[in-house]
Amino acid sequence: MNQLYAPCDLARLGSELLIASGSPAEEAEAVIDHLVESSLMGHDSHGVMRIPEYLELVQQGRIIPAAAIHVRQTSATTAIIDCGSNYGQLGGQRAVTEAVERASQHKMASVVTENCNHVGRLGAYVQAAAEQGMLAIASCNSPIHGHFVLPWGGREGRLATNPLAYGIPTSESPIVADFATSVAPEGKIRYYHNSGQQLPSGWILDADGQPSSDPASFYGPPRGGILPFGGDVGYKGYALGLLAELLGSALVGNEVDNPDNAGNGMCLIVLDPEAFCGIDRFRELASSTSQYMKSSAPAPGHDEVLVPGELEFRSYKLRQQEGIPLDENSRKAIIQHAERLSVQADLLRQGESQP
Amino acid sequence: MNQLYAPCDLARLGSELLIASGSPAEEAEAVIDHLVESSLMGHDSHGVMRIPEYLELVQQGRIIPAAAIHVRQTSATTAIIDCGSNYGQLGGQRAVTEAVERASQHKMASVVTENCNHVGRLGAYVQAAAEQGMLAIASCNSPIHGHFVLPWGGREGRLATNPLAYGIPTSESPIVADFATSVAPEGKIRYYHNSGQQLPSGWILDADGQPSSDPASFYGPPRGGILPFGGDVGYKGYALGLLAELLGSALVGNEVDNPDNAGNGMCLIVLDPEAFCGIDRFRELASSTSQYMKSSAPAPGHDEVLVPGELEFRSYKLRQQEGIPLDENSRKAIIQHAERLSVQADLLRQGESQP
Repeated sequence: MNQLYAPCDLARLGSELLIASGSPAEEAEAVIDHLVESSLMGHDSHGVMRIPEYLELVQQGRIIPAAAIHVRQTSATTAIIDCGSNYGQLGGQRAVTEAVERASQHKMASVVTENCNHVGRLGAYVQAAAEQGMLAIASCNSPIHGHFVLPWGGREGRLATNPLAYGIPTSESPIVADFATSVAPEGKIRYYHNSGQQLPSGWILDADGQPSSDPASFYGPPRGGILPFGGDVGYKGYALGLLAELLGSALVGNEVDNPDNAGNGMCLIVLDPEAFCGIDRFRELASSTSQYMKSSAPAPGHDEVLVPGELEFRSYKLRQQEGIPLDENSRKAIIQHAERLSVQADLLRQGESQP
Repeated sequence: MNQLYAPCDLARLGSELLIASGSPAEEAEAVIDHLVESSLMGHDSHGVMRIPEYLELVQQGRIIPAAAIHVRQTSATTAIIDCGSNYGQLGGQRAVTEAVERASQHKMASVVTENCNHVGRLGAYVQAAAEQGMLAIASCNSPIHGHFVLPWGGREGRLATNPLAYGIPTSESPIVADFATSVAPEGKIRYYHNSGQQLPSGWILDADGQPSSDPASFYGPPRGGILPFGGDVGYKGYALGLLAELLGSALVGNEVDNPDNAGNGMCLIVLDPEAFCGIDRFRELASSTSQYMKSSAPAPGHDEVLVPGELEFRSYKLRQQEGIPLDENSRKAIIQHAERLSVQADLLRQGESQP
């Protein structure tokens, strides 16, 4: 069982590690706050377990701490955020700031990131915009080396897991949807692989394009591919993944198959409800729409109907109290980085003496 | 087997019928051109078979031919199109005109329709915008009496089939995606029902929330529901359907469950690639992205990988030559309306003497 840690402890340790590896305090805290929040929301794969991976990318020179982020204003409503290979979260957060500012003034805005490392939880950015009263839609692509996802009808990967997300202000917590346009992220397939389990049907094709439940036939060689989401109508998931690709690469002038492209092309479209029915009325109606969804009697096997993000906000509250789980590999990897960077990481060692 | 008719003949007859029931010639032609184009693209359910249905709605006073369409400018980049219960296609086309005009000037625009009858093929609007060099995303909701689609985990319908569409300019035909956020439209279930066939698994739940392949258990009473698309990850399709609902109702100040709401709330978001990498470069990159998708070897059971819209443009060319099929019920219904409106419909009668 994974040890649980207090969010504030992980945040402090994480920030110290990033500062020790070259980030200004403010930037380190912004990145770590994103990772801790992702863990609190239950998105462990985009949470604190990323700390050692990021520190390794810094060592490799692929993340450049403290690099300047440049905003190329391309019109009153649009901008390209050149993240300069700093942490992707800083590019993503800057995208929100720029888009919300433009949308406050012009009622709509769209920004796209480039030279942007892993942005982490895409939902964080639409959530941040929604918490400022904006309706936000986001998509994210990844470069060719992550093209594990099959186009509909194909047996060779042409897309990454290209998530979509949206955030909607309500009278309470925002509605926050955030999901891969593939049926599953690669990380989940790795989990089945590592734990020796068979995959659910409909997740992957092997290299010959045959359905398979064996995660090894995804990894190959020869490599198989992950299916776009949608099952028998997976052409819909494919269409959405393709949209995310076009918004993240073509729109800012990058070639889809250029191996020099790095990181995430995040496109953020922001709309100010003030320009339609007004934010107060919109919040009220978004809340009553949520209630209308939730008023459906549950189907067998479900306790209740939820709206997107509801589960995550529950996890947030629970983990604020109970702590964030950290798997053993990540714990050890963080300790190693702490030793290398001369950062005190005793809090992670406390578990070692326990049974 | 359905009789085939020349597109221009159906267009002329359709226009005459709409003119005879109160539409100015220009409006009649615009509506009928939309329906004929939908049929040509292979979307029969949104094509000329709708003519008798629309004429009936005119008789019932639910479609008001020649009604004025009002544009409420809400900011430089946004507008609400009040369609005044005229044909939905006219509202949809006006939405494109207004959005493209605003986006040409301000690089982005969004418009939402209200009091808008059935807009027909949603893809037509994003296609029209893409043909003018714009990147367009559209969604569409329907009022409560069409809420056949289940929220994820529920057994009572809370959403309509709420389609999404997008259009992307390329160097050739645009990429045009257009699909329901439910696993299937209600019309398809009706088709299985009428022809006595069992449904594919994963399409519907019965009124108790149990999976069923019997279309009768959808219609009830008590009524079952159509599942959101996505299979095991149908919460993704649900999230998209909910987004379409919020964009079509809450954004313009309408309550989700108000039985007085009529027709489609279409939201159209338009973005000018000129504000990013420029339209020429964007076209080139969108085309090379299409080619990259299509370069994937096909999986068994598929001849090739397609991009969204490709099949429709092929159908368009083929049916331009071979004609548009019209089912027997629709043919007879159109003849009846023609008699009522004293419109000459001999071309539809020619089939009657054939074996």
